[in-house]
Amino acid sequence: MRLSKFFLPVLKEDPAEAQIVSHKFMLRAGMIDQTSAGIYIWLPLGLRVLEKIDRIVCEEQDRAGSSKLMMPTLQDADIWRQSGRYDSYGDLMLKIKDRHDRDMLYGPTNEEQITKMVADHVKSYRDLPFMVYQIQHKFRDEIRPRFGVMRGREFYMKDGYSADIDHENAKQAYYKMFASYMRTFARLGVKAIPMRADSGDMGGDLSHEFVMLADTGESEVFLHKDWMDVDPLIEDIDYDKNLEPLFDKWTSIYAATDEIHDPKNCPVPEAEIIQSRGIEIGHVFNFGTKYSEPMGATVTGPDGKEVSVHMGSYGIGVSRLVAAIIEASHDDAGIIWPEQVAPFHVVLVNLNMADENCAKTAADMYQKLQAAGVEVLYDDRDERAGVKLGTADLIGVPWQVVIGPRGLEKGFVELKHRATNKREEISPDVALNKFTAAQKQAA
Amino acid sequence: MRLSKFFLPVLKEDPAEAQIVSHKFMLRAGMIDQTSAGIYIWLPLGLRVLEKIDRIVCEEQDRAGSSKLMMPTLQDADIWRQSGRYDSYGDLMLKIKDRHDRDMLYGPTNEEQITKMVADHVKSYRDLPFMVYQIQHKFRDEIRPRFGVMRGREFYMKDGYSADIDHENAKQAYYKMFASYMRTFARLGVKAIPMRADSGDMGGDLSHEFVMLADTGESEVFLHKDWMDVDPLIEDIDYDKNLEPLFDKWTSIYAATDEIHDPKNCPVPEAEIIQSRGIEIGHVFNFGTKYSEPMGATVTGPDGKEVSVHMGSYGIGVSRLVAAIIEASHDDAGIIWPEQVAPFHVVLVNLNMADENCAKTAADMYQKLQAAGVEVLYDDRDERAGVKLGTADLIGVPWQVVIGPRGLEKGFVELKHRATNKREEISPDVALNKFTAAQKQAA
Repeated sequence: MRLSKFFLPVLKEDPAEAQIVSHKFMLRAGMIDQTSAGIYIWLPLGLRVLEKIDRIVCEEQDRAGSSKLMMPTLQDADIWRQSGRYDSYGDLMLKIKDRHDRDMLYGPTNEEQITKMVADHVKSYRDLPFMVYQIQHKFRDEIRPRFGVMRGREFYMKDGYSADIDHENAKQAYYKMFASYMRTFARLGVKAIPMRADSGDMGGDLSHEFVMLADTGESEVFLHKDWMDVDPLIEDIDYDKNLEPLFDKWTSIYAATDEIHDPKNCPVPEAEIIQSRGIEIGHVFNFGTKYSEPMGATVTGPDGKEVSVHMGSYGIGVSRLVAAIIEASHDDAGIIWPEQVAPFHVVLVNLNMADENCAKTAADMYQKLQAAGVEVLYDDRDERAGVKLGTADLIGVPWQVVIGPRGLEKGFVELKHRATNKREEISPDVALNKFTAAQKQAA
Repeated sequence: MRLSKFFLPVLKEDPAEAQIVSHKFMLRAGMIDQTSAGIYIWLPLGLRVLEKIDRIVCEEQDRAGSSKLMMPTLQDADIWRQSGRYDSYGDLMLKIKDRHDRDMLYGPTNEEQITKMVADHVKSYRDLPFMVYQIQHKFRDEIRPRFGVMRGREFYMKDGYSADIDHENAKQAYYKMFASYMRTFARLGVKAIPMRADSGDMGGDLSHEFVMLADTGESEVFLHKDWMDVDPLIEDIDYDKNLEPLFDKWTSIYAATDEIHDPKNCPVPEAEIIQSRGIEIGHVFNFGTKYSEPMGATVTGPDGKEVSVHMGSYGIGVSRLVAAIIEASHDDAGIIWPEQVAPFHVVLVNLNMADENCAKTAADMYQKLQAAGVEVLYDDRDERAGVKLGTADLIGVPWQVVIGPRGLEKGFVELKHRATNKREEISPDVALNKFTAAQKQAA
């Protein structure tokens, strides 16, 4: 992508409204643009990161055996009246009337919509179990939206649902999703700690939050100090097996949110507990028959009797994850993207567009990197060298190739690794080969 | 994918509400599920087709130099007041009040949102030109939603926008999008005829609709009979060139929508005109400064003077295309997907799950096809042979491999090509090799 044709409105000044670093850098790097309180356009650079996360989440959902679907954003109010949540959900829910004065709402979540689908289409125990998921816009009318996409009103979330014949099978679905979340977050390079959590408005008896520790997080959490030494690990998982042992292993070290944590009845001595702040990036619930009973989602069991379907729901805050990753990975100059979610793999910084040698070398490298399938951004703007180097650091692309007249005279470009700040002078061909060889290996 | 784990609620009966064949088959094949009038869940099978179309549209947009972004579905009413469309858009627009009683709306289109973005972020002629696009949900509160996703209320649409310094440059952007649409529809296997069209509520002086001829279409169109002999052709396009000659070539045969067609002033003799019905699948507009002027989207030109930005917008009905393709490609038994948008490439139909030989052969083929990256659906349901064969025809996957006890005794499975109904008896290995070799070639 040539930067001159890419819509990247970089801000020179820190925006006054940004209280946390991820919000500041997302605005400054031209990743998002606010249109109303808590509502944002995902600009091209931001969307590239969002789509990388999206893809990893989908791959892991598919691997766990969940089928992707796409629900509408607007729902009929009647199904929420059936479940009893239409009034209890409160002003967080955006209520709407259509032209025929029919009550509708912008879905804050989809338990009702899925339970209705089950009630309409699933008749026999032989149609169970199944798991479905989507990544879709939600709306929650936060009274004070803040921290950018961390607590927005319209947000982009993965929500998934499981349907089973009984509690034992529903627990297995819960473990599958739990395992897929551990893999998903590890692949994203995020250390997510599963914590016993309150089911809140969802109902049910089994619930965990996945929390990334961060000083700017809005959740208060309590965990055993051993969690500090645990690194995220991508495990191979056989989803056809009973995953309870894995689940037991992952939950063997104490961790709980403040709604659940009770110092008086905590199994861990107080001295071993760390109190911290964290960002909730995922949440899994087993809520049994809480929705299927009032909404009539029953199936005929093997014995011919009608039974209510046992269900669970599973969420990942996809847009919030973009901000959470920045909170965990940045320096004073800007964002430092982990390779797997970076918007581009390499940025070519041409320090002097007027210099013929620079222009030729940069254009040649750009063309060859593109042809090799390397995700490359070419900063071909007519800007000062300092501005371009600043942009490259700000947007946090893992590798920078800096092309300047003085280096080229000696036959060199400068290769800079954003995360370590390590620089080396190498020939354009060696630089090219480094990226195209890595690309071949990845493909 | 194993069908037993895939959420595919096939209907045995024709649904009473379906008046056109695409609506009927989309409901019967478990592609969509209606939740309110004109609002649908895209079930897993339907979503797979939608995502195939999505990907081709995105690839062609990227190729033409447009950058993908993602706008929110909800917009502030103020920007529509600025453009003057808040009242003129009428009841098609879904108006909403948030918890602070602020006027919002569910975007039926995004000219205002994009023009506001330009006004906020684009200051100099050096930031132009650019093109952006998204594929995003829209809502139009149709008074009588009908024909399934063909005229729904919440729908999924690609909308793109161009911004240029003057009319000459804006025309070039228009030609680029025009060319990318010709490529996009040709790649989808759809014959789209570009027709001079009314700009309607959009404003502007240059507008074309892309129409697929179909008896069930809602548009009345007039075209020269020569269009009947034109086949969709995927042309290589150099987007850096002036594309006016190509545009002139594509529009040289007469075609116009009924709002524009005037028999008295038509350049073509009446005897050569065909009157037909069609489905609008794309629309391109050049609307100049219609929005940039009232909304203050100006840039400083090379001469230091402030000028209003010249803009255009470009839409493709992505969800509608799914239905349009079915209208063009089906028989009495069900859908016949063109390869490039098919939800799966091959379906394995195991006629007798209880037969050990069948189960072993099917499981083995399934595992090998999956490993080779072939998109395969394995019908492992505990259903009668007739039901399974009916499902395979209904869902329209291009290739069927039918595995039955009698064939296997002779060492054969039956390979059926859905489109031609051609069948042949071949060994499982030959069948496997056919699909894995094609997959290798495609990769």
